[in-house]
Amino acid sequence: MSLLVVGSTAFDTVETPHGTAADCLGGSSTYFCLAARLFTQPRLVSVVGDDFPAKHRALLAERGVDLAGLETKPGKTFRWHGRYSSDMNSRDTIDVQLNVFGDFQPKVPQSFRSTPFVFLANGAPATQASVLDQVDKPKFVVADTMDLWIEHHRDGLLALLPRLDGLIVNDSEVKQLTGKGNLIQAGRAVLAMGPKLVIVKKGEHGSFVFSNFFHYALPAYPTESVVDPTGAGDSFAGGFMGYLATCDSVSVWNLKRAIAYGTVTASLTVEGFGVERIAAAERGTVERRFHELQQFVSA
Amino acid sequence: MSLLVVGSTAFDTVETPHGTAADCLGGSSTYFCLAARLFTQPRLVSVVGDDFPAKHRALLAERGVDLAGLETKPGKTFRWHGRYSSDMNSRDTIDVQLNVFGDFQPKVPQSFRSTPFVFLANGAPATQASVLDQVDKPKFVVADTMDLWIEHHRDGLLALLPRLDGLIVNDSEVKQLTGKGNLIQAGRAVLAMGPKLVIVKKGEHGSFVFSNFFHYALPAYPTESVVDPTGAGDSFAGGFMGYLATCDSVSVWNLKRAIAYGTVTASLTVEGFGVERIAAAERGTVERRFHELQQFVSA
Repeated sequence: MSLLVVGSTAFDTVETPHGTAADCLGGSSTYFCLAARLFTQPRLVSVVGDDFPAKHRALLAERGVDLAGLETKPGKTFRWHGRYSSDMNSRDTIDVQLNVFGDFQPKVPQSFRSTPFVFLANGAPATQASVLDQVDKPKFVVADTMDLWIEHHRDGLLALLPRLDGLIVNDSEVKQLTGKGNLIQAGRAVLAMGPKLVIVKKGEHGSFVFSNFFHYALPAYPTESVVDPTGAGDSFAGGFMGYLATCDSVSVWNLKRAIAYGTVTASLTVEGFGVERIAAAERGTVERRFHELQQFVSA
Repeated sequence: MSLLVVGSTAFDTVETPHGTAADCLGGSSTYFCLAARLFTQPRLVSVVGDDFPAKHRALLAERGVDLAGLETKPGKTFRWHGRYSSDMNSRDTIDVQLNVFGDFQPKVPQSFRSTPFVFLANGAPATQASVLDQVDKPKFVVADTMDLWIEHHRDGLLALLPRLDGLIVNDSEVKQLTGKGNLIQAGRAVLAMGPKLVIVKKGEHGSFVFSNFFHYALPAYPTESVVDPTGAGDSFAGGFMGYLATCDSVSVWNLKRAIAYGTVTASLTVEGFGVERIAAAERGTVERRFHELQQFVSA
């Protein structure tokens, strides 16, 4: 079944201990699409400026991403500049220029409105909610969020949560959202706020899934070469939603496999600068890593 | 088969956000024994002062711990005072009084010398090596270590490693030992130093196992109430070695089950102050948590 993603498209400049990459293709929906396209043809709703080059558009289109919802506005594309710490476990934002993304008002094309799987990439809760107002009874809706919205748009986020099937957050965000320092307590507390599923990303430590019916934990794929962590979370979401969109049901079994596929696509992303590695990845590599990961955790 | 542990016995004073416990029974070998006794009758080699009360001795003996190697020397028992951070992910040592443990020279009783499973709890590498000189062809030897020995007794530690079947360390120690920031690279590098098995403890994030034949990852048991993390690592080792000592072979299958049992005994320890919870635990609780943990990670 088809999959819709709404989020940012950007130019990223990234500094890591392994080097610097300037003005690369980036943005949450880009990483999401490049992971999800390994499973399905994602439909993208985003916005770029008139400086966005044809080659980036071609890179996405050639990989099966439907760009009917990629709006071009006069002005510049969103730019982000980040610098990672020496162990790459934290990063500082050096510069952000929202540009045309600053007043992003997603417009879901008519042809995308009955998409059954919907991913709301990180954005203002009101903006995320406006997407849900434009789609027709989606089957499975998942959203990402971040510290900024938890702190400053809390009411909007709390209003959004009951409209979601799943929320993807990282471990510090889930603690911030709930005020609980214990991750298990925090996960349960988010369930009480509305979503049926809470997926907590723990970076190199893998992920936890909370629902009222099952809990699940999966370590990260044991990669030996982390070059640039940018986009890991969005690639995780892309692999997760991309695989799930190919399944005939959102069963516990399929959800667990989807988490493993998301773990694999995230592992590919971090092994290259920017989108380099995930854009070059093939399904065969994904399958091989999926089976290695199953082996790694099997009792 | 029987199991020997050599390590410290102490009085601990612990401050956590949940309260303070003063002058509790503690020490690496105590936590190890209280976890291992859920599977087998551990043999203890340690030293205490003449202030060590009969009630602590009785607590251990009543739970099947063989105290034939617990030496009493004139003077005071080892004392440790620690204070945990608000999230309990780090701790400061407020005070250490080594007392009779300061010049601990383990004497393995004749009746313990042919013990097939041996655990060398955290201690100076030369002291750990002196134990191996006293035992007769053990089947499976595992040691713990810490930052102090890695930094200041590196040669002794490097000489010990090839004599071990397994090394248990935490994630920061394995990086310190190898100089590698990536955990997977670090784990492999330790294997090249001699031990057949490297078990990396990651606290709330579970553990990794490295060997030349298989890798394995297991999340922590999802406990909701961490009261006092003291002794978690030694209880992990106790559950791991205790279960393994009951197996007819050290197979990959049994090693993975032993890691899960260690994960469970560590989860029990952290739910109470000092040894309170692990000393009260029964095998039925361990089995229930073992199966919950398998469920938690099963694909």
